[in-house]
Amino acid sequence: MKSEEESIIALLHGRDRAGLVAHVAGWIYARGGNILHADQHRDTQEGIFFQRLEWIPAGDVESEMRLFEEMVSFDLGMEAKLIRSSARPKIALMVSNFEHCFSDIVLRCRSGELKCDISCVVSNHEKLRQMSSIYGLDYHYTPITPETKGEVESEQVRIIKESGAELIVMARYMQILSSKFLADCNCPVINIHHSFLPAFAGARPYHKAYERGVKIIGATAHYATEQLDEGPIIAQAVATVSHRNSVEDLMRKGRELERSVLANAVRWHIEGRILTYKNKTVIFD
Amino acid sequence: MKSEEESIIALLHGRDRAGLVAHVAGWIYARGGNILHADQHRDTQEGIFFQRLEWIPAGDVESEMRLFEEMVSFDLGMEAKLIRSSARPKIALMVSNFEHCFSDIVLRCRSGELKCDISCVVSNHEKLRQMSSIYGLDYHYTPITPETKGEVESEQVRIIKESGAELIVMARYMQILSSKFLADCNCPVINIHHSFLPAFAGARPYHKAYERGVKIIGATAHYATEQLDEGPIIAQAVATVSHRNSVEDLMRKGRELERSVLANAVRWHIEGRILTYKNKTVIFD
Amino acid sequence: MKSEEESIIALLHGRDRAGLVAHVAGWIYARGGNILHADQHRDTQEGIFFQRLEWIPAGDVESEMRLFEEMVSFDLGMEAKLIRSSARPKIALMVSNFEHCFSDIVLRCRSGELKCDISCVVSNHEKLRQMSSIYGLDYHYTPITPETKGEVESEQVRIIKESGAELIVMARYMQILSSKFLADCNCPVINIHHSFLPAFAGARPYHKAYERGVKIIGATAHYATEQLDEGPIIAQAVATVSHRNSVEDLMRKGRELERSVLANAVRWHIEGRILTYKNKTVIFD
Amino acid sequence: MKSEEESIIALLHGRDRAGLVAHVAGWIYARGGNILHADQHRDTQEGIFFQRLEWIPAGDVESEMRLFEEMVSFDLGMEAKLIRSSARPKIALMVSNFEHCFSDIVLRCRSGELKCDISCVVSNHEKLRQMSSIYGLDYHYTPITPETKGEVESEQVRIIKESGAELIVMARYMQILSSKFLADCNCPVINIHHSFLPAFAGARPYHKAYERGVKIIGATAHYATEQLDEGPIIAQAVATVSHRNSVEDLMRKGRELERSVLANAVRWHIEGRILTYKNKTVIFD
Repeated sequence: MKSEEESIIALLHGRDRAGLVAHVAGWIYARGGNILHADQHRDTQEGIFFQRLEWIPAGDVESEMRLFEEMVSFDLGMEAKLIRSSARPKIALMVSNFEHCFSDIVLRCRSGELKCDISCVVSNHEKLRQMSSIYGLDYHYTPITPETKGEVESEQVRIIKESGAELIVMARYMQILSSKFLADCNCPVINIHHSFLPAFAGARPYHKAYERGVKIIGATAHYATEQLDEGPIIAQAVATVSHRNSVEDLMRKGRELERSVLANAVRWHIEGRILTYKNKTVIFD
Repeated sequence: MKSEEESIIALLHGRDRAGLVAHVAGWIYARGGNILHADQHRDTQEGIFFQRLEWIPAGDVESEMRLFEEMVSFDLGMEAKLIRSSARPKIALMVSNFEHCFSDIVLRCRSGELKCDISCVVSNHEKLRQMSSIYGLDYHYTPITPETKGEVESEQVRIIKESGAELIVMARYMQILSSKFLADCNCPVINIHHSFLPAFAGARPYHKAYERGVKIIGATAHYATEQLDEGPIIAQAVATVSHRNSVEDLMRKGRELERSVLANAVRWHIEGRILTYKNKTVIFD
Repeated sequence: MKSEEESIIALLHGRDRAGLVAHVAGWIYARGGNILHADQHRDTQEGIFFQRLEWIPAGDVESEMRLFEEMVSFDLGMEAKLIRSSARPKIALMVSNFEHCFSDIVLRCRSGELKCDISCVVSNHEKLRQMSSIYGLDYHYTPITPETKGEVESEQVRIIKESGAELIVMARYMQILSSKFLADCNCPVINIHHSFLPAFAGARPYHKAYERGVKIIGATAHYATEQLDEGPIIAQAVATVSHRNSVEDLMRKGRELERSVLANAVRWHIEGRILTYKNKTVIFD
Repeated sequence: MKSEEESIIALLHGRDRAGLVAHVAGWIYARGGNILHADQHRDTQEGIFFQRLEWIPAGDVESEMRLFEEMVSFDLGMEAKLIRSSARPKIALMVSNFEHCFSDIVLRCRSGELKCDISCVVSNHEKLRQMSSIYGLDYHYTPITPETKGEVESEQVRIIKESGAELIVMARYMQILSSKFLADCNCPVINIHHSFLPAFAGARPYHKAYERGVKIIGATAHYATEQLDEGPIIAQAVATVSHRNSVEDLMRKGRELERSVLANAVRWHIEGRILTYKNKTVIFD
């Protein structure tokens, strides 16, 4: 079924070779499509080609998507990720005791800035139950101890999968996800780390930054991988600090960074603006 | 004559219509060219299409440029500006008493960061003659009074034209260029204004900023037009200030901004990264 | 009544003269007080001295405050504004249809980052009634037409005064307050303007910024005065934009700036960190 | 000998206790001094008090400095570092092949922005000999091999000491200074590291940053200590990068950061604005 306004967003990447841009644009043009945006990038060092395209197809959206995918695969030997502009994915929020990132994501969904729905909130604490209730969200309390971790993670995966989430957002969830969790949930996980990685990876980064006497602090949104704090970086932001600032000041300034950096990362993911390769990201913003 | 490594840079703009990307990319591909970079932009509100392309042609560079220009004009009804990657344009520096932007541009040319040559230095003061001499530059002292302005400007235009300059850079030249000068010199003029325009246009912006008590100051590089400080903005940067800062502090902080903003603007111009329309710029950086 | 932990914050300003720092510090020291912070500033051009002091008095807090005020007035001929560290002022929020600044201030109050209570929400629209209800806030709908403006403003002043507010925060309230309102409410009013003032004062600044083609947008928190958008600037922040950004993108980026800039301004005001003079602010942060 | 305009700058630090501010300010006031600036900081966690004072003494500058130092030592048990405002210290530049930081420091000295003289340039390469000659600087070529390092460093120390330098500035000097060098030169050494430390310490930080795919790069000025890249941080600055930026782009953007960060650090040092303790700095700017 085709909507007059609906467009298709395609994210391509694969081995670079001559004529890619001409071929793809020619294919869409020949089929009566109207390209709204086209952005590409070449990693000349690695010989990889990346492209984000957005076009309004002349024909039925679903079938155009299928045909495009076939063309990309057969003609170019490349992978394509395709998104309908009308899509409104479900996301699962994982939280602990911090409210700022949680409320920020929720309010941006409510205001329409983030085109997604929150399918569930999963937490190892009870702290944000009340706020979740206020916002009308489905809250799941899943306390974790070292002994129960495996079991609880399985339960969390079950909840998230049943909720239909296509993306997990760790909004200052203060537990390390196991490799098994990441494998089982089978969807991307975005995490916000409260330092400008790779500086101050691991726990208590604001305390470490204070001890080291840095003049700039930061926050980093990245895809979670098995290697803690080492996944592909999506977005970073920083703020200046001085000797006058206490650890508490660093935390306060950091909260500003965390929520805006996390929101950008989630928005770019939802809008199909992120390609990952070799532990890096290409952001078509 | 063709160099193995040489590429062609094209800046196109014109009325948007379906198939532009496919047509241009297809033309280059069909002639054996290898596209290195392609970046485009649509102003959907105005219906204008902008593109920057860089490719290594299979054939002779000069003739490929000529053929491309014809194709763009005949097939698409668009204008193209074409640059050889080996080009090393001449630029004329106009200066007064401030050294920071002047030395900055000179040193970037010397280090190879800016791929251009300084064909002459024109000044209404003698202050920078010694530094020009140290740097081995051709210095022209052209003092100006209200009475002699027309006459002196004609002389300045003559010097600049004879030097072969294709771009004029006002590196804190503290005189307003007349419409006649801009018309006669017949080449782009980049100016650096010491505020974040449109705030504090005109004279003594740091004093005005101090008086107003702003918490942020800035600098703006723009193309000079007949309307003072109202030409298309190329680059802007800002720095924070506080009640502790004197006007002198604002000036010192501003010098940092001025020189980096001006250098970016000149670099983007030389590398064929700027398109202007409707008093705005599109920067393909 | 004295609390063990309670400190006094004093904001002084007046004609500069020799010995001020020694006199004030000596007075506190002689009375057994323990100075936690002392920050001063001299506007040498104007000959004005500014100081922010925070100390734990040895004696009763109330009487120490009274004695300090007398000393400052009699000995130094200066004005002092005094705040107890335990104070938790009431603030009135004025809003229209935008939620981001409103929710931001409310959530910061809830989390304890802003040490104040929201005594009432006054709006010329119904849009934020539901959110106010969710947050448990007292909401007053006061629609305004050109004809009813005087009358409605009187009603607004009455509501705000009865609520006990000591500060009014215009969280994107899209009406111009009359001189009468400002005089009658008799308390400071902080406004957030969605541009880096003095650029783009007045209505629709993001549209104006888009039209002008600036590369940086901003937001400005200032005290409201009779002259629209010309009051003392408290805080400013900026973000970069490019030709790729639509007016909607500017608005989205601007919302980030608006809420953080407004929150900083409100926090500094509440913590007694702002002195105003000659339409400027001194911020002891 | 007393100059009418000359002021004294004092940097104090020591164990915090009640009455410090009153005592110091009272002493200056009692002796007819006129305090221009006074800025203090307490590290409440460590119980350390820091103060920067600038005043015009009524009496002879030299004897007032001596008396102040005695008062601080006897009365307060604190250390004081004292600087005459007319002082114009000599600095030694250590360089390798990069010109940007070198030229930047030289030009700021020439323009009067940095109130110091360059007593010598020491380099392990010949690259900057010509520029040094142009600027009229004393250039010493001291090539280093692993075998000759000890010997050459002794020679470097001798050159620097004979030149009368009170500060060594490593303007992208690409050798690690030995503990012996640092001990022997017996003066502060400021280094510029081309990353936002502690991220990417050690060699080739721009390459490491590129590999890691960070979205922000930085530069850090710090005092050199025996632990490579671990000395007290003086200043940091950052710039955004994207997937479009090559390693060369990172280097170019980094050069901007390096030179402005290094210049700030040198200026603050010369103006007596930096106190160090516990591997951190207090910057009274």
